[in-house]
Amino acid sequence: MRHLSLVGIGAGDPDQVTVQAIKALDAARVIFLITKVRETEDLVAVRREVLRRHVTGEHRVVELVDPPRGRSRDAHEGVVDDWRTRRAKQWAAAIATELGEDERGAFLVWGDPAIYDSTLGVVEQVLASGTVAFDYDVVPGISAVQDLAARHRTTLNQVGGTIRVTPGRRLAEQLADLTTEDVVVMLDAELAFADQDPDLELFWGAYLGTPDELLIHGRLGDVADEVVRVRAQARERKGWMFDTYLLRRAR
Amino acid sequence: MRHLSLVGIGAGDPDQVTVQAIKALDAARVIFLITKVRETEDLVAVRREVLRRHVTGEHRVVELVDPPRGRSRDAHEGVVDDWRTRRAKQWAAAIATELGEDERGAFLVWGDPAIYDSTLGVVEQVLASGTVAFDYDVVPGISAVQDLAARHRTTLNQVGGTIRVTPGRRLAEQLADLTTEDVVVMLDAELAFADQDPDLELFWGAYLGTPDELLIHGRLGDVADEVVRVRAQARERKGWMFDTYLLRRAR
Repeated sequence: MRHLSLVGIGAGDPDQVTVQAIKALDAARVIFLITKVRETEDLVAVRREVLRRHVTGEHRVVELVDPPRGRSRDAHEGVVDDWRTRRAKQWAAAIATELGEDERGAFLVWGDPAIYDSTLGVVEQVLASGTVAFDYDVVPGISAVQDLAARHRTTLNQVGGTIRVTPGRRLAEQLADLTTEDVVVMLDAELAFADQDPDLELFWGAYLGTPDELLIHGRLGDVADEVVRVRAQARERKGWMFDTYLLRRAR
Repeated sequence: MRHLSLVGIGAGDPDQVTVQAIKALDAARVIFLITKVRETEDLVAVRREVLRRHVTGEHRVVELVDPPRGRSRDAHEGVVDDWRTRRAKQWAAAIATELGEDERGAFLVWGDPAIYDSTLGVVEQVLASGTVAFDYDVVPGISAVQDLAARHRTTLNQVGGTIRVTPGRRLAEQLADLTTEDVVVMLDAELAFADQDPDLELFWGAYLGTPDELLIHGRLGDVADEVVRVRAQARERKGWMFDTYLLRRAR
């Protein structure tokens, strides 16, 4: 039977891949690389570098260009579902044609497949469609959340405390709960931190693990403007932005 | 100046270490291994195996036996602080005597140093005490939270949803917040899941990444008794238990 490994490759540093991940990639005859229509060259380069530096197994790389993603805030979940269905059809066809019936393949996944990533959901949808049969396993990877904490040399929780991770559009709701102490924000295009309590402590990071890494830390009220400025300049300079941040409420 | 790396080594599988971690360990002349007074042989063996399998740099292993930890629920934070202070004194002495002034050392940390781990806090306390000077960096590792999700082949968040991680004694409080969807429980000696809504979905795992790994998944009301039984039997058989679980509230 066909076998797929969904392999987390870390947040940006090609050395952040685990030995377990390297073994899964070494065993794969086909490595599927998901890219966007106008994929940033930097991001393709990191994935190619993971393969070049660490993977010795003989393999072919099959690039799958994501179907364009409709955007609508009002119908957020509906849009995601339709996008997933189109991806599932594309992946099913690619797995059936590119992977022999007893071959092993692998999908490269940024960060960790369990944390704000759709690969697992799409793969489940491919299986549910019944168009191609395979077994699969998941290899965890270092997420941007973890690299953010490591680079700031801080923990994600206070002693005995809780950790939350949220998309930006749910930050205000999470902070409204007074049991919230540490909250990490992923996928925040709208700078949701800007409107929050200025006494929160902010740990911000962008392009983590890459030579362009940016880190800013301080009282939110003191550093929010700097983050907005640095973020806009970097986005302009590089043409893309991937950032993550931790907001901490002292107990 | 002395340099320390606090290196996450993953949740149990010796291959879950990253290349970044291996490089930091290879560069270390002294590797500090923290153990308990009656340390479980299995847990020492995994750490020794990480070093044997992946680390080629010449090094000495210095084992530091943790001072016994007082236990008191009422004074939880006070007890933790006193324990930290005693550890900080022990570590300061070990760093000063075992590590030459320009040498690199490393501390092996289970999982990720940012997630429910005290190493960073103790190191900060050593520095604050002023007894020995050093620089340090942090290398993230795969946490049990992530391995749990990978082994169950599930994500930690639902689409657009939030993730929470909490100690067992704060589970009820977290579930009382109706915005809670997915909550992972670490450090739960009191089986806090047993009293929760039976319609929650439970993903439970113990000894993750080891040959003794146990996984149970299902509706909480259907599998809670099984988890309690399997957990008690395994603890009796092996003499120790390390488990983690995800509770999911369908949206």
